[in-house]
Amino acid sequence: MSKLRFNITMSLDGFVAGPNQSEQDPLGVGGMELHQWIFPLEAWRRSHGEEGGEVNASTAVVEEWTENVGATIMGRNMFGGGPGPWREPAWNGWWGEEPPFRHPVFVLTHHAREPLELEATTFFFVTDGIESALGQARAAAGDEDVSIGGGADVIRQYLAAGLVDEFELAVVPLLLGAGARLLDDLGGTAVEQVRVVEAPGVAHLKYRVSAAA
Amino acid sequence: MSKLRFNITMSLDGFVAGPNQSEQDPLGVGGMELHQWIFPLEAWRRSHGEEGGEVNASTAVVEEWTENVGATIMGRNMFGGGPGPWREPAWNGWWGEEPPFRHPVFVLTHHAREPLELEATTFFFVTDGIESALGQARAAAGDEDVSIGGGADVIRQYLAAGLVDEFELAVVPLLLGAGARLLDDLGGTAVEQVRVVEAPGVAHLKYRVSAAA
Repeated sequence: MSKLRFNITMSLDGFVAGPNQSEQDPLGVGGMELHQWIFPLEAWRRSHGEEGGEVNASTAVVEEWTENVGATIMGRNMFGGGPGPWREPAWNGWWGEEPPFRHPVFVLTHHAREPLELEATTFFFVTDGIESALGQARAAAGDEDVSIGGGADVIRQYLAAGLVDEFELAVVPLLLGAGARLLDDLGGTAVEQVRVVEAPGVAHLKYRVSAAA
Repeated sequence: MSKLRFNITMSLDGFVAGPNQSEQDPLGVGGMELHQWIFPLEAWRRSHGEEGGEVNASTAVVEEWTENVGATIMGRNMFGGGPGPWREPAWNGWWGEEPPFRHPVFVLTHHAREPLELEATTFFFVTDGIESALGQARAAAGDEDVSIGGGADVIRQYLAAGLVDEFELAVVPLLLGAGARLLDDLGGTAVEQVRVVEAPGVAHLKYRVSAAA
């Protein structure tokens, strides 16, 4: 059965980006530090076209994130290109000519745009809301899962709507103090612990969302 | 070397008590659910004078919490008896005639009171602040560690003052949505991951506080 799921790196105090996010600093102040655990990994480097790197307990977790995923949903902020109407020259995402997704990506936006076809990945721009994006993503994914790429706002909307089946948090030993908090105002969402993995500099916590409590 | 440490159960969204804490509902609405993982444990039941119970991956973690602890510090709210001046008849804590501490306990309060000596545990009431309480607790503990019993406010004060050496969070699969958040306004506190333990219904995450970043 096809699932809606996400994985995200979160500071110990619950932030997935630092304060003062901007076009120049998309992860906010201190936000880049969140991801220090992943950059040395061979699994990460390989998916970004680089060789070498470490293999440790995070490897299998990171590989699982992209296994059996047939479509991705993301917010306009994560796709980038600034807020408001699309400008010229066209912004084609952060990922270059060959984005690592290699499946259809549905970008939630208020501003219509023709699909953007890059090497092995096509971005579709969805203007009629999260349920529509999910329906289109499920149709594109077939039997495979749909992954929510982020950001925090989009993930929170899907969680609040009770549409998420499963998620995994990479909890890092960092106290950011401010920024975008992932799990805000989600009281009443019932979750079950699926598994916990200890890895260097990160704790991987996986949960299943239960039927509404 | 004697350490200052604490352990506490926290919801996945960062709360250590639910909203609307009161004398009748000291853990707040939904707060009791936080602790469901511990009650079935043999290690918990034994320390509360009961027999039987489960042994699982949480057992060693819970036993470690009280090992090598020579004194405890807690806030007035945790000791209980309502806010403001001490009333008659005297409130002697939640723990009956034989509290489970079995070492000196230092209660932070604005209201002076003579020490309260119960079976194997004496409560001392400290009115001159967290550093004084820590000094007295260290003196009482000798080579052993000092544990901060709670609540969240007291723990946060010690963290913000840079006085904590080590802490362990029992993260439970629960989204409370509101209540007392443990790790608020602690940006800049540098921590290192010590270990991660997977246990039924709970993830035990242990951290060391590093020198100020």
